[in-house]
Amino acid sequence: MGSDDGLKSFLEPKSVALVGVSRRTGQASFNILENLLSHGYRGTVYPVNPHAGEILGIRTYPSVKQIPADVDLAVISTPRELVPPLIKECTDKDIRAIVVVAQGFADADEEGKKLQKEVVTIARAGGARVVGPNTFGTANAFIDFSSAFVPVEMARVPVGLICQSGFFFIGFPGLRLIGKGIDLGNACDVDFVDGLESFEDDPQIRLIALHIEGVRDGRRFLEAARRVAQKKPVLVLKTGRSEQAARMARSHTGSLTGNDEVWQAALSSCGLIRVDDIDELSDLVRAFSCLPPMKGNRVGVVSFTGGLGIVAVDSCERNDLELAKLSPQAKQTIADMSPPWLNIGNPVDAWPAVSSQASFEQMTKALATNLRALLADPQVDALILMATAFTPAFARDLAEEILETVAAFPHKPLVSYLYGPAVEEARAILNGSGKTMSFPTLERTIRTLSQMARHHRFKS
Amino acid sequence: MGSDDGLKSFLEPKSVALVGVSRRTGQASFNILENLLSHGYRGTVYPVNPHAGEILGIRTYPSVKQIPADVDLAVISTPRELVPPLIKECTDKDIRAIVVVAQGFADADEEGKKLQKEVVTIARAGGARVVGPNTFGTANAFIDFSSAFVPVEMARVPVGLICQSGFFFIGFPGLRLIGKGIDLGNACDVDFVDGLESFEDDPQIRLIALHIEGVRDGRRFLEAARRVAQKKPVLVLKTGRSEQAARMARSHTGSLTGNDEVWQAALSSCGLIRVDDIDELSDLVRAFSCLPPMKGNRVGVVSFTGGLGIVAVDSCERNDLELAKLSPQAKQTIADMSPPWLNIGNPVDAWPAVSSQASFEQMTKALATNLRALLADPQVDALILMATAFTPAFARDLAEEILETVAAFPHKPLVSYLYGPAVEEARAILNGSGKTMSFPTLERTIRTLSQMARHHRFKS
Repeated sequence: MGSDDGLKSFLEPKSVALVGVSRRTGQASFNILENLLSHGYRGTVYPVNPHAGEILGIRTYPSVKQIPADVDLAVISTPRELVPPLIKECTDKDIRAIVVVAQGFADADEEGKKLQKEVVTIARAGGARVVGPNTFGTANAFIDFSSAFVPVEMARVPVGLICQSGFFFIGFPGLRLIGKGIDLGNACDVDFVDGLESFEDDPQIRLIALHIEGVRDGRRFLEAARRVAQKKPVLVLKTGRSEQAARMARSHTGSLTGNDEVWQAALSSCGLIRVDDIDELSDLVRAFSCLPPMKGNRVGVVSFTGGLGIVAVDSCERNDLELAKLSPQAKQTIADMSPPWLNIGNPVDAWPAVSSQASFEQMTKALATNLRALLADPQVDALILMATAFTPAFARDLAEEILETVAAFPHKPLVSYLYGPAVEEARAILNGSGKTMSFPTLERTIRTLSQMARHHRFKS
Repeated sequence: MGSDDGLKSFLEPKSVALVGVSRRTGQASFNILENLLSHGYRGTVYPVNPHAGEILGIRTYPSVKQIPADVDLAVISTPRELVPPLIKECTDKDIRAIVVVAQGFADADEEGKKLQKEVVTIARAGGARVVGPNTFGTANAFIDFSSAFVPVEMARVPVGLICQSGFFFIGFPGLRLIGKGIDLGNACDVDFVDGLESFEDDPQIRLIALHIEGVRDGRRFLEAARRVAQKKPVLVLKTGRSEQAARMARSHTGSLTGNDEVWQAALSSCGLIRVDDIDELSDLVRAFSCLPPMKGNRVGVVSFTGGLGIVAVDSCERNDLELAKLSPQAKQTIADMSPPWLNIGNPVDAWPAVSSQASFEQMTKALATNLRALLADPQVDALILMATAFTPAFARDLAEEILETVAAFPHKPLVSYLYGPAVEEARAILNGSGKTMSFPTLERTIRTLSQMARHHRFKS
């Protein structure tokens, strides 16, 4: 333990003291102990509550100092005025990692700011690090641990999250953002640099996601970020862009925020991947986890409708992607399948070739021939398919043909935007495969490829 | 029939000739007759096929002229070279409304352009109007009619769609975009002006959605659009924004496209509501169908997390919405429920008040008190709730409290962005009510309110 181990005690604790845990459990109790047990944590837990002998069958202790063993991590969830003396009690017990859960510090009034300063002073004097206040603390799916008072949406994915809002810990169905997570909250002590250093050489983490409202020491942050971004993709959702929001962010977590253009320039020069919203964060986490790299910015587009092809061209232009100029060979393959009047260009209108087939199976086979011609074309760096999922049976055929095509061309991203009555069936198969992505909107499809192309440019 | 009735024969046909319908039915046949029957159309259908005595139990006729009764609408789905003589046969039979389904006209090569001209010349000489070519034709959910060769996603909603791509007819699960629909395709004859005039005074249509790639006579279009937009909201998804896409649009449907800034200025001066993508189109169709008008641009925001509040402030600024300055009365109500250290501002951090309650029911009641204080505030034109759906039980309580609050304040939009493990349960109840909207992303929430506020400004 201690500062040499970075955040090990926060992220891999073998023993945890839950200080100020309530006797109330069940609905609406937001009981940290109950949550921790529900996740299946197998370390030792010491609930501390002056009034309880046991909570949920686990022996409690009237105070930290009465815990009869060493403790890696203390999680303090009491009203704010009780926190400073409890920090002292923890450091007296040689606890070097402390999460302070409560709101009401630098995020609130003058008294809160004073209390937060006390927390830092006492912790530093005692050699302890502090995560928070105003935080869910930390989580680690690999050991089923979380210090949050609500269930955390985590899974054993190679994704490290460092955020400043519990919002990201609560998560969304289907979004697997936390293999290991740190909610910095007010970031009175442990900050983004600590988090980045902790994930930098962690073999369980291959991708890092940051939600930043502001940082205290910009230069130190950017130095660490630049170094880590050379090793693994670092995604950044920076909120508080407008002046008004930046003011709020200062008051929310008491951190410095800075002009958005400065942020933009700094993040991009360090090779960080800036995302605009939570959807994009989620898309890129999945893209960097399951797609091959996109080695240029030239896309092929195959569409069942000319109208949607035009929408794709607009979106590519907005997102700095080029429509690939198809090679003669690819064009010939497509022309051979199509009526003589069809203009063969990119986007490819696949409908005439597909709709002339006699069965769903032959339709998806014809489509796959089309896709393979483009994937084999050296002019094409990634391929987007836009197609109709007419019926559940067609959707299954379609998804299987796409997966076979992906398997035959594992070195170029093939992604899709599907629509129509049976779209959910097709998307479930494709996204469940972990080998390709099928997006809910065309804009998200193209935005994701654009970020992948940009990241590859930075890396090379 | 005839041009005096506008598009009545296209949209409300009592009898339809399906010219060139195939004997092949079932999977991958894209049989127009089969589709029409599957929708439950109760008008008279005359399949025309030189080789078949009956298709799907319905008597067929070897040619149009052998149909023994008057016909309102003919749908021609033969290869392109057969179309001009069939148009002549239709006009000889005094059919005044003709849909030409096939591709390969102005959307293709020189020969196709020539054929399309012939179609127009013959139709005009015979007094008939033509929808298409390169189209699904028309659809009307109120009479279970569609001329498309795939099932059309339609419902008896008061929405009229005029589009240039079959993509919009195929639709998406949950998106109810077509009460009545016209796919103009290449728009060789029937165009946006005809469509707008047809929906202008139709009491079954309260909202019009346009998908435009280009129009032939811009001035005529804008005159009609300006007039109709005074009567009902007109949403416009204009594709082909970039130069490259505009070029493609010219080749796709052979229409003029024009510089995007010119379009932007023209649409907005006519009071049309321009949307950026299909999600926004879908959101605004629902918003104008189920929300009360937003009479100004000042929003109240209630959040369970400060971090998300900051994201909302950014998004409001990007979308020209103001954060309402709360009146003292609203502030006092919230302060009375919150710990003394909480800064009461907008966004309102509802978590301290909500989380101190002893049950889910009390939590949602406390939240509702908060929402009602803001809805009662004359400074607030619309309210956004951002909250966590912790469990299915909590999600149901939350949704019910929101619906009661909506019922108590029917004159201001109250919308929500929910997240967390049970978000789907809450959203299903809220969106199923038809009284409020709960969005999948915060950005879409705020963008929708912004468009509603802008539309109200134009109307007043």
